[in-house]
This record gives sequence, structure tokens and C-alpha cells, in this order.
Amino acid sequence: MARIAIDAMGGDYAPKNIVEGSLWAAMEYGVALELVGRQDDIQQELDRIKSVGYILSDCGTKGHKRKIKIDLDKIDYTITHASEVIGMGEAVGQSIRRKKDSSIVASVNAVAQGRCEAVVSAGSTGAAMAASLFGLGRISGITRPAIAVLLPTTKQPLVLIDGGANSDCTPGMLTQFAEMGVAYAKLSLGIENPKLGILSIGEEEGKGNELVKETYPLLKQMHEEKRFDFVGNIEGKEVFKNKADVIVADGFAGNIVLKVTESTASMLLKMIRNEFKSDIIGSIIGLMAKPFLRRILKRINWEVYGGMLLLGVNGISVIAHGRSSAYAMKNAVGAAVRVLNKDINSKISESINR
Amino acid sequence: MARIAIDAMGGDYAPKNIVEGSLWAAMEYGVALELVGRQDDIQQELDRIKSVGYILSDCGTKGHKRKIKIDLDKIDYTITHASEVIGMGEAVGQSIRRKKDSSIVASVNAVAQGRCEAVVSAGSTGAAMAASLFGLGRISGITRPAIAVLLPTTKQPLVLIDGGANSDCTPGMLTQFAEMGVAYAKLSLGIENPKLGILSIGEEEGKGNELVKETYPLLKQMHEEKRFDFVGNIEGKEVFKNKADVIVADGFAGNIVLKVTESTASMLLKMIRNEFKSDIIGSIIGLMAKPFLRRILKRINWEVYGGMLLLGVNGISVIAHGRSSAYAMKNAVGAAVRVLNKDINSKISESINR
Repeated sequence: MARIAIDAMGGDYAPKNIVEGSLWAAMEYGVALELVGRQDDIQQELDRIKSVGYILSDCGTKGHKRKIKIDLDKIDYTITHASEVIGMGEAVGQSIRRKKDSSIVASVNAVAQGRCEAVVSAGSTGAAMAASLFGLGRISGITRPAIAVLLPTTKQPLVLIDGGANSDCTPGMLTQFAEMGVAYAKLSLGIENPKLGILSIGEEEGKGNELVKETYPLLKQMHEEKRFDFVGNIEGKEVFKNKADVIVADGFAGNIVLKVTESTASMLLKMIRNEFKSDIIGSIIGLMAKPFLRRILKRINWEVYGGMLLLGVNGISVIAHGRSSAYAMKNAVGAAVRVLNKDINSKISESINR
Repeated sequence: MARIAIDAMGGDYAPKNIVEGSLWAAMEYGVALELVGRQDDIQQELDRIKSVGYILSDCGTKGHKRKIKIDLDKIDYTITHASEVIGMGEAVGQSIRRKKDSSIVASVNAVAQGRCEAVVSAGSTGAAMAASLFGLGRISGITRPAIAVLLPTTKQPLVLIDGGANSDCTPGMLTQFAEMGVAYAKLSLGIENPKLGILSIGEEEGKGNELVKETYPLLKQMHEEKRFDFVGNIEGKEVFKNKADVIVADGFAGNIVLKVTESTASMLLKMIRNEFKSDIIGSIIGLMAKPFLRRILKRINWEVYGGMLLLGVNGISVIAHGRSSAYAMKNAVGAAVRVLNKDINSKISESINR
């Protein structure tokens, strides 16, 4: 049974949502847990859950909570005490170096020392990245790790890489992100020969900023070497049209795509709710339409994918959303489970170094 | 009465939608027109419209056409013959130089020669930008013109600049875009003291890519000099939250925001339609919900704003969407009308050169 290290203290609602979500994941995916953080805080959560026998969580739609049965006796878990917590606003470099006994550093160590197969943290993204890079090291040949995100579309989800780890990139970095993203799409989504595109403005070769224009011929070359199926530029308006299964971008533009998508969807749903409330007939129709809209909300909710994978480090590291609910945390563990035992890192290493 | 030069041959549905939309605008805003393009083609459209006395156009929602009465005798228009057309796919520099008698170049000339107050084109964005820059020249002190776009929010629209004119930018360019965007928000949207933000990843000062990190202190300095109200970084997830009235970005990131917004909204509405169709009760509720969703669609439709303003050139130049309907074209002329007689360029020049 695979064991997952959980940074129990990371996230806006830690340790509650984190412990709850991990236990739920342990039940759902049949994995063991190493819960890392302040022993007393974690134990208190476990005692509470044990005494009631269930947790309450929404399942991708706000305000719609379900009871999830948790049988602690059936879950294989250990607690590893770590006395310190790195907060969301702290300077990353300093805090990683100074807080030697922080929950994020200790949970990464659980993987580095071979006790666990993967680590999941909903703490500061910067701290989780730095701790993972520092604790696990890079895959040989990789210049910089990158964040791979799954985005919902009307069909299958797509992989966006880099979701924000590297604000400034070189063409060489983008070609490595491309290889990592393609490997991830194959292993995690089961796409045999993923189509790779590069985020740009303008469709044709030669359109885009300097970075894209310099990267394009490199990707084309790799396409000719049959390393992957490169389909060219993907404009912002085509991101969700399934022209590419993997979209490569620098971390600045990639993060903008990720966040603007979230933001547009939430604005639109707010507009729809307000529009229905504009009169009494609207309110009634809105009430009837609610279950349908809720299903949409669930499909596009980032919580469904729960976590972003940090690719390029020597181990599996999932970074969950800081605002993670138990449901989001459960799914973040799920993101780790999807790549377990698939040797993703040796496959990335093979692609990069051939 | 102000006269607007119309590139009657530019756009996927030219000259039909272009002529129709301009005439509609002439009726609605009380402006005169100089229709520029192939005399015969334009005359044929005019004859057709004159004989029936109306045009048919959707008004921001697809498949919902309205009859709009057009009384040609009440419209002050002239036709200026231009024999050539620059197509959407043509190389910009070459075609502008070679096709001396193209409709876009000739309609820009109508402004350059003082016959018209503004030019509107739905042709190739690159060609319209190049023709405007070449024909009108830059405002003194401006390094590079930029595209200002209005984006819908739940409250008032916001100004995004640059929407795609400059793929690679320097900090100095971004500070100029900021000044131009603020002037535009004041004059076009009537916001007295617009809040300015810079698109970034991460909220705090010091977060973002190199370009943002170098631009931030310059904008802060300008804030201290009371040139505008700088509110700092705006993350992708906050774009629509009205934290800023004007968002400055390089043209690559700005275009991504613009297009991803369009793309997300259209995917979401498609999902909603499909969800309602999933069973018979859904279909009935969907039918009832349709007018409400249609109102939303209308509010977020790019056609409502119709055109992007090219700021920084010595004259008013509006670039409309290539796929413009008559309704979108009417609104593109409206975008020009909103800044007419407001001396936007001398105000920009004053801000830049003080």
C-alpha cells in the first residue's frame, strides 16, 4: 500500500480540512498516510473525527454539504511531529532555511527518506515548491521544475504547464516543460499521443512574443524527431477547444490563463444568479435551474482536480489550493494517486536525456 | 456634424455588415460617414438597403434578429473609391506598402487629410494598426501605440491596455500605456480618478515577472507625483473584481486575458446549454431560462463594445472585430463617438510630456 505524506498544517483551513480530506482520500483510494505537523493539533482532529465517525464536506458545490463516513480503524496512518508552520505570507527562502522543523519540510523529507511515495501540501505554493526542490532535488537534466495544472474543458481536461512556478522563462525551459507536460498527459490522463500546443497570440508560426518565436522552431524540431505531436500556436480563444491536450507557457502567462479562467467563470455565474433574481418569475425559474447550474459548477470547479503537480523534482509533489476544502484536499491526494507507480519521473528523465 | 471614415471592405462580412452597421450608427449617433472601398460594391449595398428601407441584425444575441429602419435620405454620407483590399492573412508591412489604394490606407487618409474625425476598420488588426501608425503618426513622446479594450464586469466595464499591439514591452512602454489607459477611462467611461493596476501573478510588490517588477516602482513613483491612482498588482483572479478601472499589461499577456475571457465564457454557456438538454425536464427549464441567459450573453458579448481603440496615434482609430456583425460595427462606430470632441490625444500628449 502506497503511503502519502500530508503537510497537515498547510492551508487556510489547516489542520481541520487537511486531516479530513486526507482521511477521506485514504478511504477512497486505499492509501496509507503520514500526517505531518503539530502532534497535538492533529491528534485532536483525529479524536474528533473518531468520536463522530464522519466528516461534513461540500463536494464541489458550495453550501451543499454531505456526510462522509470515516472509519479510523480501517485507515493506516502515522503521525510525524513537526513543531513549526510556514505561513502564507512568509518570505519563502528565509522560512525554509530557518524553520527546519516546519511541517512542509518534514513532509517532503518523508518522501526523500523513502517512507512515502508522494507529498501533498496546501500551504504556501512558494514554500511547497522550494521545500520540494530542496528536499527532493531535480530530475537529472531538468533546468527548472514547473507546475502542471489540469483545466476542465467540455471534453477531457487539458494539461497547462507552467501554471506559475517560473515567471521568466527561456526557450530551453519551455521545451522541457513540453516534455514533462506530455509525459504527464500520457500517464495521468491516459492519452496515448497527446497533442502539444504553445500558448501564443496569433495562430501562425512567427506570431507571438520573442519567447514563443524562439521556442516554436525548437518544438517543431522535436516534433520531427517524433518526441511528441506539436500542433503549433494556441491562441487564448482556443485554449478550451481541445486543439491541444497539453499547452506549454511561461509561468506568468500560464498563471494568468489559470486565474482568468477561474475569475471569468465566477463572474459569469454571479451574473446568472443576479439575472434570475431580477424578478419573481426569474426567481422561480432560477430555483428550478439551480441543480443544473450546480452540476456545471462542479465540473468547472478547481476543487475537482484539487492539486497541481510539481514536475521536474525527484519525487511526487502535489500543491493544493490554499483555500482547500476537505473535498479539494481529497482530490489533491487523488492527483498524487493518479501518477503513483507509473514511474513518471524516470519517464520524464528518459525523454529529457535521450 | 462629425464625419467618420469607414473601411467598408475590411472584415469577414464586408462590405455588407460594415455598410449596414455604419448606416445604423449614423442614424443612432447622428454622425456623417465617408464610406471607403470599391465604389460599385458599396453602391450595391446602399441600393439594396434603400430599396427595402431596413436592415436585419442580431443585437448582441445570436439568432435573434431585429429589423432596424434605415432612412438613407436622412444620412449624410459620401463614398470614396479605393480599388484594393488587404486580406486577413496578408503580411502586414508588405501589403500596406504595395497596396497604395487599399480601403484601410485610404480611410486612414480621410482622417490624416482632415475630412474625417475618426476611422473604423474591421479588417486585419495588423494592417489597421500599421496603416494608422503610418498615416496618422504617433503622438509626440509616445514610443509605441497600444490597443485599449473595454472588458465587461458585473459593475462598470474596465479598460485593459495593451490588448495585443506589442508582444514584447519595456517598463517605459508600460508606463505610457498606463497614462493612455487612464486618460481613456476618464474620457470614455467618465471615471473621474480611475484606479490603475498592473497585471501580475501574486499580489504584493515584488511579485511577477521581470517586466512587472521593473515597472512597479515607476508606476509607484508616478502615483506619488499624483499622475494617477496606482493600486498595485492585479492577479488574474481579480481582473473582474473592480479593484482597478484600468489594467496595464504587455500585449502578449493582455491579449491572453482578452481571449481567455471570451473563450471561458463561451465554453461555460455551452456547458449550461448542454446540461439543460440532458433530460426532458431540463429542456423545459432551459427554455424558460433562455431569456435570462440571453441577457447575460448580451452583457458579456464583445459586440457590445464593438471596437478597440488604438491609442497613441495622432487621430482616432478604432479596430473592430474581424467577424463583426452590423450590430458590432454600429457599436465600433459608437466607440469612436464616445471619444470624439474630447481631445483625447492632446490630453494624452499633455500627460506624457509633463
